[in-house]
This record gives sequence, structure tokens and C-alpha cells, in this order.
Amino acid sequence: MEVEILVIGNEILIGKTKDTNSNWMAKRIAKYGHRLKRIIAIEDDIKVISTTLQTILERKPDIVITTGGLGPTFDDMTLAGVAKGLNRELEINQHAYKSIEKAYENAYKRGILKLEGMTKEREKMSYLPRGSIPLPNIRGTAPGVKLTEGDTTIFILPGVPSEMKVIFQNVVKPILKEKRGKFVEKGLFFIGIGESQIAPYVTRIENKYPLLWIKTHPRIGLSLEVELSITAFNVENGEEIAEQALDEIREIILGLNGKIRERK
Amino acid sequence: MEVEILVIGNEILIGKTKDTNSNWMAKRIAKYGHRLKRIIAIEDDIKVISTTLQTILERKPDIVITTGGLGPTFDDMTLAGVAKGLNRELEINQHAYKSIEKAYENAYKRGILKLEGMTKEREKMSYLPRGSIPLPNIRGTAPGVKLTEGDTTIFILPGVPSEMKVIFQNVVKPILKEKRGKFVEKGLFFIGIGESQIAPYVTRIENKYPLLWIKTHPRIGLSLEVELSITAFNVENGEEIAEQALDEIREIILGLNGKIRERK
Repeated sequence: MEVEILVIGNEILIGKTKDTNSNWMAKRIAKYGHRLKRIIAIEDDIKVISTTLQTILERKPDIVITTGGLGPTFDDMTLAGVAKGLNRELEINQHAYKSIEKAYENAYKRGILKLEGMTKEREKMSYLPRGSIPLPNIRGTAPGVKLTEGDTTIFILPGVPSEMKVIFQNVVKPILKEKRGKFVEKGLFFIGIGESQIAPYVTRIENKYPLLWIKTHPRIGLSLEVELSITAFNVENGEEIAEQALDEIREIILGLNGKIRERK
Repeated sequence: MEVEILVIGNEILIGKTKDTNSNWMAKRIAKYGHRLKRIIAIEDDIKVISTTLQTILERKPDIVITTGGLGPTFDDMTLAGVAKGLNRELEINQHAYKSIEKAYENAYKRGILKLEGMTKEREKMSYLPRGSIPLPNIRGTAPGVKLTEGDTTIFILPGVPSEMKVIFQNVVKPILKEKRGKFVEKGLFFIGIGESQIAPYVTRIENKYPLLWIKTHPRIGLSLEVELSITAFNVENGEEIAEQALDEIREIILGLNGKIRERK
């Protein structure tokens, strides 16, 4: 499956908050053999959210995951932006309403929050784009949302990492696992020969194994240490082929008098 | 000025590498009063790079900064992708050629690299889109690039953080400073009252000070602790106005029996 992530929040764009969610999700998407094609971070703006979502949907990914902008305040515009982008009404969702009501009731009873009952701002979180399935948020109050548009499934997740992670694990991961593909990632580090010296050999290996992606990254400037990484998505016997290519690369490195440091 | 960042690299999308560059740049862009409008991460693919760049340019940002994909290997496709996106030829740049030659000469003399002289792969890094100004990379070999297209300035920077940072500081920062705008960011933390309880009051303050952006973020699920942040771009007396709004918010929080934790 092809996946895109849409990160929504001014705090990311002014550098106040580090977007750790995307990397966390990216690892899991790759692990189950799916291709994360794009991560886009945008500001809290209904028009920007709606037009960006439309552009993403034109590329027909299987899954879109948004994070952020689900809270009770006026600056949380994700649901309104998604509704506009999909040209759907926002309408009250009774399941969402009840779960939000219950979360606040519990928080009030436990003495965490002092304001009892539903308010306009709390109700706001239960207004979802038509066709939404609310996703329980046991770590917070704003539920996540699942929607489908054409062949694309859209997951709208909170930006608070602990809340995002629980909903991802409970709802998104099972789908990634069910439609699981094969992903292989292997690599090593080498020193003593630069990226540019090994480049023609790597190109030869790449041509020999066209289904593998082989990338080298200098880890320290001037190629003092280089990481070589082989990735394969949905390749029959990918594990063995990647290992075979890596063995040939090991030989090349040693033949050039480079030193190999295997990954732990 | 409006800025967009384009992050290029499969390693980001499979979650192998954390994109720390964007957050580092985002802070500096905001600090000098400029608006980072979007961060986009895409894979190493000439077509994706070229079409994404074209879409960015349609939005007419003042500055586009790309990171990654500048090395000597075949998987480093940024220059080819940018050239295609701008419909320009890649042509050898003598300044770039000489600086790359010199970097390798030094690395060879210092015993860091064993291969002497220029090779096809090393030369590759000196083929720049027509009209490029190479930007010296004292921490590595691949130079950065400065280009203009219409009213947009494009900076093409390496993905290795130490290399990116030096070029950013030397070349991008002076431009951000020269065209400096005003940016104010203030805030506090509060406990005891949730986001939803304070929301109507914050909306009132927001209406009173329409030039400020006021955002609340739960720091812990269920709003156990909430961060409130006020941001202002290019507002006359922004500092004073934000402080005034923050004072009114302090009063509101205390009036609701919330507790304030000031930022250090």
C-alpha cells in the first residue's frame, strides 16, 4: 500500500515542536512492507488543509494519516479542513459525543478537570465529517476519525504523541499487518574509502539487482564513515537477495582496502 | 518572506533517518520573522522531485530550501530533479568542479581517502542546473547550490546536518537577517483547567487581538498540563501586545482556579 502523512500545526512550522510522530509512523509503515510516499507539514488553516488534502487524494494513496489539530479550541481546524476538502458536512456524531462526554465526566470525577459537563468547545470535537467512524482515544478526549474517500482510507489522529500512538497501534497497525508486504533493510558501515570511490561498484551491484535500492550516506563529512543501506519492498526472496548483494559489497570494500563495521 | 522546505531522501520515508534538519531550520526561519509555510519530504526520484518543485514554485514562495540527495552516487538525484523541474540543462560548473577537486585532493593528502583525482562520480557533483551559484561546503565535498527562478530563490543544501548547517549559516541566514521581520513567541503552562474550559476565554482574547495567534496544546493526555503559546509575525509592538494578552490570560487562569507555571 502507498501511504501519505499530513502533519497539521503551526507549532511544527515555527520549530517550537519537533514532529516525532512522522518518524515513529514511518518505521512502522515500512516494517509492514508499505511505502510511505510523502510527509507534508502545513499550518492550521482550513483552506490550506482542504486544498492539501485534495492534492494528496489526486495521487490516490491507499492510506492518508493526518496528525494534529483535533482539540477543543478554535485553532484546531483539522476536522473542518478535512470536511471542506472532501466537500462533506460536519455533523454531530453520537458515538463521538458520548465518548467525549464520558472522558470529561471521568476527568471531573477524578478531580483532574474542574468544569463539569459538555460545553460548546467540548461538543465541537464530536462534529465529524459525514461518514466518519470515530476512533476511541483512551489517552485523551478528542477521538480519532476513520473515513473513506474513493479507494483511500483517511485516518485523522491527534498530535499528542501518546494519543496518536495508541490509536495507531489499535486501528492503523492491524490494517498494515493484514495487507502486509515484505520489507527488507540491511546495511553496514565502512571507513577508508569514500562514497565516490565505491559509487561505480555500487552502481554495478544495483544494475545486477534492479529490485534493490542501495543507498550510501556519509555519516561524517568528507566520507570519513559511510553507511550503506539496502532496501527492498515486496521482493520475492528479498532477504536472501539483499544478503547476497551485501556480501558482494563486503568483498568490494575489502578489495579496496576499506574497513567494515557491521551493524549491531 | 515565505519559505518552503523540501526534504529529499528515502531514508526519511522508511523512518531510518530522523529529519532533524527541518526543525533546526524552522526555528531560525521563525526567529528572523519569516513564515515557513510547508515542509515536504519525498523520495529519491527524479520525477517526484521535479513535479514537487514545480508545485512549490506555483505557490510563489520567496525561498525554497531543499536538503539531501547531493552526493556522488547514482541515488543522489536532487540536482537532476531540480534541473528537470526548472526545465534547465545540467552543465558542468567550473567553480564547483575546482572546489570538489580540491576537497578530494586534501582528503587524499590527509590520508582520509585512498582514491586520488577526479572520477565520473566526483565530477557528477559539479554538474549543476544552468544558472547555479555553487555554495562552498567546507564540511564535505558536494557544494550547495543557489538558484533563482522568477522571484523565488532556491537553496539546495546537503542532507548531512553538519554540512547543511554551515552552508545555512553562511549563506541563508544573512538573507533571512537582511530581510528580517518581527517574530514574537511567548507562552506559559497551566494545570487544573483543561483546554476546553479555557477555550471560550482564549477565543475572546483572540478576537480582541486579531493579529496574535494563540494556541493551546495539551502536554499530557486529558489536559493534565496545557501549554499556551502566543505567536505574532510582523506585528507593530508585537512584544507588548503579546505580553498584554498573556497577562489577561494569566488573570483568567487564576480566576478559574488554575495554576500557572511560567516558562523558564
